[in-house]
Amino acid sequence: LLLDDELQQQEDHVVQLFQDTSLSVVFIKDIELAKVSKSFSKGVVLDEDEDAKVEGSGSGFIWDKFGHIVTNYHVVSKLATDTSGLQRCKVFLVDAKGNSFYREGKIIGFDPAYDLAVLKVDVDGYQVKPANLGQSNNLRVGQSCFAIGNPYGYENTLTTGVVSGLGREIPSPNGGAIRGAIQTDAAINAGNLTLIDVHSVGTSTSSNYQSSCKTETKFCKRTWTSTMPVISIFISTDGYIILGKYKAQVRSTWQIHFVLPKRGKKIYSSENNLGNSGGPLIDSYGHVIGVNTATFTKKGTGMSSGVNFAIPIDTVVRTVPYLIVYGTPYSNRF
Amino acid sequence: LLLDDELQQQEDHVVQLFQDTSLSVVFIKDIELAKVSKSFSKGVVLDEDEDAKVEGSGSGFIWDKFGHIVTNYHVVSKLATDTSGLQRCKVFLVDAKGNSFYREGKIIGFDPAYDLAVLKVDVDGYQVKPANLGQSNNLRVGQSCFAIGNPYGYENTLTTGVVSGLGREIPSPNGGAIRGAIQTDAAINAGNLTLIDVHSVGTSTSSNYQSSCKTETKFCKRTWTSTMPVISIFISTDGYIILGKYKAQVRSTWQIHFVLPKRGKKIYSSENNLGNSGGPLIDSYGHVIGVNTATFTKKGTGMSSGVNFAIPIDTVVRTVPYLIVYGTPYSNRF
Amino acid sequence: LLLDDELQQQEDHVVQLFQDTSLSVVFIKDIELAKVSKSFSKGVVLDEDEDAKVEGSGSGFIWDKFGHIVTNYHVVSKLATDTSGLQRCKVFLVDAKGNSFYREGKIIGFDPAYDLAVLKVDVDGYQVKPANLGQSNNLRVGQSCFAIGNPYGYENTLTTGVVSGLGREIPSPNGGAIRGAIQTDAAINAGNLTLIDVHSVGTSTSSNYQSSCKTETKFCKRTWTSTMPVISIFISTDGYIILGKYKAQVRSTWQIHFVLPKRGKKIYSSENNLGNSGGPLIDSYGHVIGVNTATFTKKGTGMSSGVNFAIPIDTVVRTVPYLIVYGTPYSNRF
Ligand SMILES: [Ca+2]
Ligand SMILES: [Ca+2]
Ligand SMILES: [Ca+2]
Ligand SMILES: [Ca+2]
Ligand SMILES: [Ca+2]
Repeated sequence: LLLDDELQQQEDHVVQLFQDTSLSVVFIKDIELAKVSKSFSKGVVLDEDEDAKVEGSGSGFIWDKFGHIVTNYHVVSKLATDTSGLQRCKVFLVDAKGNSFYREGKIIGFDPAYDLAVLKVDVDGYQVKPANLGQSNNLRVGQSCFAIGNPYGYENTLTTGVVSGLGREIPSPNGGAIRGAIQTDAAINAGNLTLIDVHSVGTSTSSNYQSSCKTETKFCKRTWTSTMPVISIFISTDGYIILGKYKAQVRSTWQIHFVLPKRGKKIYSSENNLGNSGGPLIDSYGHVIGVNTATFTKKGTGMSSGVNFAIPIDTVVRTVPYLIVYGTPYSNRF
Repeated sequence: LLLDDELQQQEDHVVQLFQDTSLSVVFIKDIELAKVSKSFSKGVVLDEDEDAKVEGSGSGFIWDKFGHIVTNYHVVSKLATDTSGLQRCKVFLVDAKGNSFYREGKIIGFDPAYDLAVLKVDVDGYQVKPANLGQSNNLRVGQSCFAIGNPYGYENTLTTGVVSGLGREIPSPNGGAIRGAIQTDAAINAGNLTLIDVHSVGTSTSSNYQSSCKTETKFCKRTWTSTMPVISIFISTDGYIILGKYKAQVRSTWQIHFVLPKRGKKIYSSENNLGNSGGPLIDSYGHVIGVNTATFTKKGTGMSSGVNFAIPIDTVVRTVPYLIVYGTPYSNRF
Repeated sequence: LLLDDELQQQEDHVVQLFQDTSLSVVFIKDIELAKVSKSFSKGVVLDEDEDAKVEGSGSGFIWDKFGHIVTNYHVVSKLATDTSGLQRCKVFLVDAKGNSFYREGKIIGFDPAYDLAVLKVDVDGYQVKPANLGQSNNLRVGQSCFAIGNPYGYENTLTTGVVSGLGREIPSPNGGAIRGAIQTDAAINAGNLTLIDVHSVGTSTSSNYQSSCKTETKFCKRTWTSTMPVISIFISTDGYIILGKYKAQVRSTWQIHFVLPKRGKKIYSSENNLGNSGGPLIDSYGHVIGVNTATFTKKGTGMSSGVNFAIPIDTVVRTVPYLIVYGTPYSNRF
């Protein structure tokens, strides 16, 4: 079977696109120390040892040559809301020549309303390659797109598809809605999103807590006020669910369900791999058109193949400068 | 990164294909009234209020300029089998100029054996764009295909892939088999198909009813004769399962399992989003080659990525005229 | 909508690729006899009757003109480890002219460390078409790839995607790791891999055995020493899980969980459809670059769309000759 010149060129284009853009993609590891370590407090990230626990991981991309990193808020929410002083964040990157290194990531700003956060890493001595930014206001359903993420450390992952829909509304970590989201059939593996059938909330999985609630709604409200670590399920009135570990504020338009671990037990920390969540969605020119954010699933479907979402880059471009300058969204800058 | 002319042309082709064909795709909402409303009985569809409940939703496509709409039988099965007089169906469409409007859909005919139904909406004052029909007898595994659906109202969704297989057999709502089905790896999000692991039927999920049955088979038989609303699981001898809410007739070649809601409780009505089920599967020429019907899953796999099915257009073309003329399949027309 | 020459040529290429390569793909059915049958012992495979039970099925491909078939070890693990004399294996193939036939498959060799096995079928009177082998050391992320399998008997299935990642590490049936695995977003339907949320191991699904264990870890250890048929879950320290029925050896780097059937009950035998597991992953030239092996899922994610793995062909090429000659891996040949 021969391969036509044009077909070969087309494959080479995707290969090249991956090689060009993956230098800007980083891997992010959330770490919780058992006790405050001296070396950590000096900004040097240690390898995990017996005293450090990986809490979660995800992807991000290099915003500028100063070492600002853009990712999802939910990838670094523990660090962002840390009061214990034990949360750390390790960022694995490559420089423009392909040399890999890692640094501690300091939280610069975050906006749960758009599920965005900015980290900064010390890139002294390295020349890093910021991602090329595109526009999302002129996207067209049907155009090709490419999701890049770094679920494992130094090795990026590519998935391909088309823009499936535009102007979608997806739930944000603060219980609001992110408008204008891009839908794609390029697989986004948001590893932390556990699919739990809604039925099981009312029956077996939640059995540990069933005794304390009468109706399903009460069940949710009660567990919500609990201070235990939870895996939360956000269910919109439109029937979407998203699951994660971040604490969300409750809006009346979302129903919220929990699946709680047994009392006194930690949730498996190794579950929190966020896959390529936080990584860039890229067009055929190699420009970032969105931030891969979540794989949702219709309430009750138990699957989500082909329904993936990204925060549009125009929203990111409007939000990130304020996060860098004020550490907070524009609306909160006073 | 530059984009070669041919690559740009290829992306433009998919974009154009979506724009051309999506005008023919409609969104279908199943509504149950609390009481018979006067305005509804005059053919005017009200917005849902406290007295109307969305029972399910799905996609369909415009068959002709008279306002006939083709969809899956299972998308409108409640309306098709309504005896209460409380079932209504709301169809959201756009005209050839892109103006969106909605109308009540009246059921014209249906054939559970092929999971097909025809609705009619009043298109007076609007020029609608019927879908271009292709052929399914000359399809080839490997050719490109495009699934369009309208899971949200006025916004279509596109997923892309290839014809993965031909001549598949899938279960039909009447317990028989639909032959010649097209298999594709373009994602079809049949939102109403709940994946329930078969193991859980025998253990936790069905625990509400376990007391009344000794063996798993008996369990199934018994609940089958129940008049309660059910989520049914059809399990073929080949190991496929499909889940839905329609009442199926039992053939000896299918095993049937149920997962029942608690007595006295309604199943979550918002779960019934049928995604792009009922919408068209389209070839590279923009011609409809099938009706996206269901995402099946191998019994026991718990997932279905890349295994999606469509009813071949040749079957649709043979069936629909009889449904329009007789309201019933050819075999039942006497 | 017109179709540009180049676009048509591109579609024709994929169609041609499928037609050329699918002749080398076989369907494998695992059968357990109720009693040793005379006809079976003579090498003639009977149709399944009341006395024979399909234990599982999967895909494979033709290695040479002598009738050697390469597949995953886990597709034929029951036959490979059979001591009862009741395990049989039926291979469905087509010859170079497209004539379909089936033969009993005899196990020639297997290597659980790479999840590979070789069967031999009698191809007397038929000219079969061995697969063209490629190389996996020069693969590039982004290049197109095509997964072919035979989940149903005589009908192959094609899914398409790109190479998503290289150098992945996936768990092997002996509890070790297979290095250099290819990751792809072409859907691989490893039908036997049941996704069971890890949480359910500790709660409902495992309730039959909960009484005999105090902690989750003990639970696992205990059931591991059981001689009952199990569905095992391998959980790597990296958070991957794979489920299957084969008995794996425990390495300290994997956590292992079980979901056991009720005592005295067989696990549903029809569940074990291995989809296109064991079939070839092919590049745009029609060359085999890997053996489709499993769809993994991040521990706790409950889904795996877009994360599929194949054993690299270079590993297969190094391993298979020893399996044919010695019936065992090179390292065990003494
Ligand atoms: Ca795809
Ligand atoms: Ca459900
Ligand atoms: Ca199973
Ligand atoms: Ca099962
Ligand atoms: Ca979990």
